[in-house]
Amino acid sequence: MAEFEIKPEFYNYVFSPYLEPAIRINCGDTVVFHTEDAFESRIKTFDDLPSKALKTAKFLNPQTGPVYINGVEPGDTLVADFKSIEFTRNWAVSAVIEYFGGLQSNDITRTLQAPLKEKVWLWKVVDDGKAFYNEEMRIKIPAAPFCGTCATAPDLEAIQALTPGPFGGNMDVPDVKPGNKIYLPVWNPGGLFYIGDCHGAQGQGELCGVALEITAKATVTFDVIKGQTINWPRIESPDKIMAIGSAKPMEDAARIAYAELIKWMGDYGFSPEEGYQICTQAGGLYVGNMVDTVYSLVASIDKRYLKRL
Amino acid sequence: MAEFEIKPEFYNYVFSPYLEPAIRINCGDTVVFHTEDAFESRIKTFDDLPSKALKTAKFLNPQTGPVYINGVEPGDTLVADFKSIEFTRNWAVSAVIEYFGGLQSNDITRTLQAPLKEKVWLWKVVDDGKAFYNEEMRIKIPAAPFCGTCATAPDLEAIQALTPGPFGGNMDVPDVKPGNKIYLPVWNPGGLFYIGDCHGAQGQGELCGVALEITAKATVTFDVIKGQTINWPRIESPDKIMAIGSAKPMEDAARIAYAELIKWMGDYGFSPEEGYQICTQAGGLYVGNMVDTVYSLVASIDKRYLKRL
Amino acid sequence: MAEFEIKPEFYNYVFSPYLEPAIRINCGDTVVFHTEDAFESRIKTFDDLPSKALKTAKFLNPQTGPVYINGVEPGDTLVADFKSIEFTRNWAVSAVIEYFGGLQSNDITRTLQAPLKEKVWLWKVVDDGKAFYNEEMRIKIPAAPFCGTCATAPDLEAIQALTPGPFGGNMDVPDVKPGNKIYLPVWNPGGLFYIGDCHGAQGQGELCGVALEITAKATVTFDVIKGQTINWPRIESPDKIMAIGSAKPMEDAARIAYAELIKWMGDYGFSPEEGYQICTQAGGLYVGNMVDTVYSLVASIDKRYLKRL
Amino acid sequence: MAEFEIKPEFYNYVFSPYLEPAIRINCGDTVVFHTEDAFESRIKTFDDLPSKALKTAKFLNPQTGPVYINGVEPGDTLVADFKSIEFTRNWAVSAVIEYFGGLQSNDITRTLQAPLKEKVWLWKVVDDGKAFYNEEMRIKIPAAPFCGTCATAPDLEAIQALTPGPFGGNMDVPDVKPGNKIYLPVWNPGGLFYIGDCHGAQGQGELCGVALEITAKATVTFDVIKGQTINWPRIESPDKIMAIGSAKPMEDAARIAYAELIKWMGDYGFSPEEGYQICTQAGGLYVGNMVDTVYSLVASIDKRYLKRL
Repeated sequence: MAEFEIKPEFYNYVFSPYLEPAIRINCGDTVVFHTEDAFESRIKTFDDLPSKALKTAKFLNPQTGPVYINGVEPGDTLVADFKSIEFTRNWAVSAVIEYFGGLQSNDITRTLQAPLKEKVWLWKVVDDGKAFYNEEMRIKIPAAPFCGTCATAPDLEAIQALTPGPFGGNMDVPDVKPGNKIYLPVWNPGGLFYIGDCHGAQGQGELCGVALEITAKATVTFDVIKGQTINWPRIESPDKIMAIGSAKPMEDAARIAYAELIKWMGDYGFSPEEGYQICTQAGGLYVGNMVDTVYSLVASIDKRYLKRL
Repeated sequence: MAEFEIKPEFYNYVFSPYLEPAIRINCGDTVVFHTEDAFESRIKTFDDLPSKALKTAKFLNPQTGPVYINGVEPGDTLVADFKSIEFTRNWAVSAVIEYFGGLQSNDITRTLQAPLKEKVWLWKVVDDGKAFYNEEMRIKIPAAPFCGTCATAPDLEAIQALTPGPFGGNMDVPDVKPGNKIYLPVWNPGGLFYIGDCHGAQGQGELCGVALEITAKATVTFDVIKGQTINWPRIESPDKIMAIGSAKPMEDAARIAYAELIKWMGDYGFSPEEGYQICTQAGGLYVGNMVDTVYSLVASIDKRYLKRL
Repeated sequence: MAEFEIKPEFYNYVFSPYLEPAIRINCGDTVVFHTEDAFESRIKTFDDLPSKALKTAKFLNPQTGPVYINGVEPGDTLVADFKSIEFTRNWAVSAVIEYFGGLQSNDITRTLQAPLKEKVWLWKVVDDGKAFYNEEMRIKIPAAPFCGTCATAPDLEAIQALTPGPFGGNMDVPDVKPGNKIYLPVWNPGGLFYIGDCHGAQGQGELCGVALEITAKATVTFDVIKGQTINWPRIESPDKIMAIGSAKPMEDAARIAYAELIKWMGDYGFSPEEGYQICTQAGGLYVGNMVDTVYSLVASIDKRYLKRL
Repeated sequence: MAEFEIKPEFYNYVFSPYLEPAIRINCGDTVVFHTEDAFESRIKTFDDLPSKALKTAKFLNPQTGPVYINGVEPGDTLVADFKSIEFTRNWAVSAVIEYFGGLQSNDITRTLQAPLKEKVWLWKVVDDGKAFYNEEMRIKIPAAPFCGTCATAPDLEAIQALTPGPFGGNMDVPDVKPGNKIYLPVWNPGGLFYIGDCHGAQGQGELCGVALEITAKATVTFDVIKGQTINWPRIESPDKIMAIGSAKPMEDAARIAYAELIKWMGDYGFSPEEGYQICTQAGGLYVGNMVDTVYSLVASIDKRYLKRL
């Protein structure tokens, strides 16, 4: 039950089975991860327009890790129990970036139109870290920190850190937060856990593509479920179980999320037919991101519907 | 401020500008609508399998209306203030229908696979109308009634009652419920309001395509915003403003919903750039239906973010 | 075997079962249809920018018809044998329209970006009607006339003339051309055939959304296949059979097109498994339009693969 | 101008910058690649049903390479001039695989339905290699060999060999064939060229997901365009220039393909506005595959439209 701290000197930009572990730990151990923001802190002022400030960045979304968890093997499920997230600076940044975001054409959804005008949005941490305040708009939003990315290394592939998928990755799902357990598939010995991209808060969909990006310390305790194989990430909160699907078009992400949730309900004694019916009448389905290389949707069911009367 | 009651002898299956009004009322008047279920009560027992029971149904999703509201003209916004929904029988029905629903191929998303096995699910109204109970699964779900469809007649077109769109229609959005106001575009004199498809409760996405279908009495008070033109349906709850987009693929529905919400935020003094930023950090985005001819998503923002500090 | 001519004084903008027939004919009769261009000839010069020239147009894509074909009943298949298309003026027009077209955001695929700059493109009919020439670019393109729209009236619904679907409609498929037979489902007595939107030529996809729009005379001979029910439009050329699917996302249109083609191959004695295999190895699949309210794809198989050796 | 031959002892299943080159050559050199079929020849008889025969295959679609081409650097364009493809056995295989293919639900487009029934299709090479014959159906199809995959290594990422993308990969585009030049972006020194997945013939869309899979020898001559950066693969045939987009939903692939083609037309002196107009009236757009992890579409323009009169 040891506790470790990882404060990287350099970051990775890929969820890869080919990188050396930053640390090797045991199940039950806790790691405090220092995470950079998605721009590696290159945008600090209104004048750091993305087209200029990100010129020196060959890749985005720096990741801390990977962590090798002893005893974790392919076919197991890795459990990442999120204990806390603390901000390590007193401001967050968002931005409108050219040809990026939910209401702009981009590299994949191409148009011939001019991009949106770039803009940097700065938000101060206020109220003892409980809120963010933007002076320009005079708007305050409660802090609700979570990690935009957490992943195990994929099988065979090395995937850039801007992508979500079966391995987790850049899901931008607000429920990857303290108090919740994240379950991830394992394809490589040690699992090889990556984490990064802390968001101080984020709406559903992460509309402009840039949440309240901030540096942070994320504290996670690791465990394993031996011999239980899952195909996509799952989340357990005190009240709900949730499954995440990441795909395009968005309906495919929705289908994956609900199909995986129904599979999970099987562990509680519900047939697929029953799961299908219960989710129809009582399931939740929200959009985590509609901006990344593929979109992430979260299907959920309240735990009270997992027990028969 | 008169109150009227409509108990149809026959129903319409189309949102159409070509049908005679069932009634003509004034702004401020209230109408109690008796609504049939989506199957026109053809499925009552386990043995009423859809492939058999629906053979006599040329069309589905019967609608009550249209209501002609005096003084409402093209270019106005119709306000439907949902006062209450009462069930008019003590059971609801759901079903798995061949080649229909979110986890099944269908007429548009075609495969060569066999359909899912049909099944009828019956749910009893219990707890004085506050819950539904399914004996087969021994599962109880709180009642949360709303109208799956409400619409104004489209411009020029007559659209079948299974379709959602700019006119509202078969959105299957749980926020079309008592306590909320629904705003609809107006293309025809009198607005021509249709309503139906009461759901006793429904999860987000309406996964299998059939919620807790039940007959009901829906009480709605009508008003108009003269000269205010909107392009898509909107909802106002005590706490939130919401915009609904209906389209395929689902990301298009998401884009419409957020773009319309940002436009609405303009009425509160926020520029599109500000609306885009606030929705990014604090917006909500859930799936109403992922089963109809196009999908409906709901974008929302809490009213507390509509005031500058 | 009579021949008729329809030169409308006014046009329809909707594929509707609710309109009076322009003419009643018998199977075997031929009709010469005068068709307007999609803008009803409002754009004639470089200065007729769409935002200005189309202000007086409440609807676009005027249709000639409907034709009532005696003896044609719901459940039959209507056969429209395209005999010829002649241009009735010596120029065609294309245009870039704001928020419309394949490489621009639009009413459904929304962004916050500014639209493309409008522009009118004029093309002269040259080489005795065999080609189009654009002086500005000094580019010549062979004429390949076809009808962007042809439809039977839908069942119950009235659908605007910009939409393709099971009823045909605004498919913008270059194979709806002289020498080919178009097969359409029938939902209403008389079939109620509409036609319009002649294109002097068009690339696959109709990329900017506006082909070489031109007024024309289209000559069509009608026939019926009694008691044969089809669900989507089909085309027969001297060499190929083709099925058209119209849907969004585009993969759904592709699935419909191939699924319907495989069904058609059943008439030639091939099982679905065989059809699936033959289409895999020898099928054609091109994009008709990627710009309309839904997209149209054409799946085809060469007739030589419809006979076993 | 040397000629080399690569007959691998083992294959790669990933397009990766992390693998050792199989060979290092110079620009102008020619390589004869021996390629395995997508199943690594595990399916040889009717009884080798995929669920059984592929059990020993952790990965599919074996690739030959990578080839390191001296002098090729990031930012250049690699030219792969396809000289010939010869079959190295006298039969090809196709199959229906459970939960795979264009008319079946799959791992991403999920349903709860049972899969299609598996089936192996065997096709004999006949007519001196000029055709394929299937005895079961008594159908003969002309040979039209091409490589389903060819790729340069991606930037940073390692991508499984079943995926198409900006790097080329599993595009399943029939125009990757002898007589045509394939242009690929370069992100790594030497380019790192992979090739495999020869198809004896294939329809557009590769409908069931398995074309006429066959082992082969592909002969390719390599060249480089120094300092010319492209973002997606391109093809040049004697008559046409073509651009390939790979994405989901399919309309995104279509947008990429046409946007890249218009960019390429810029090299011929056409502005984007002109390219947009010419493609609208004369472009080609067909579906390469509608079955891989993302779909590949090919936009083309005839070379005669690249010269002003």
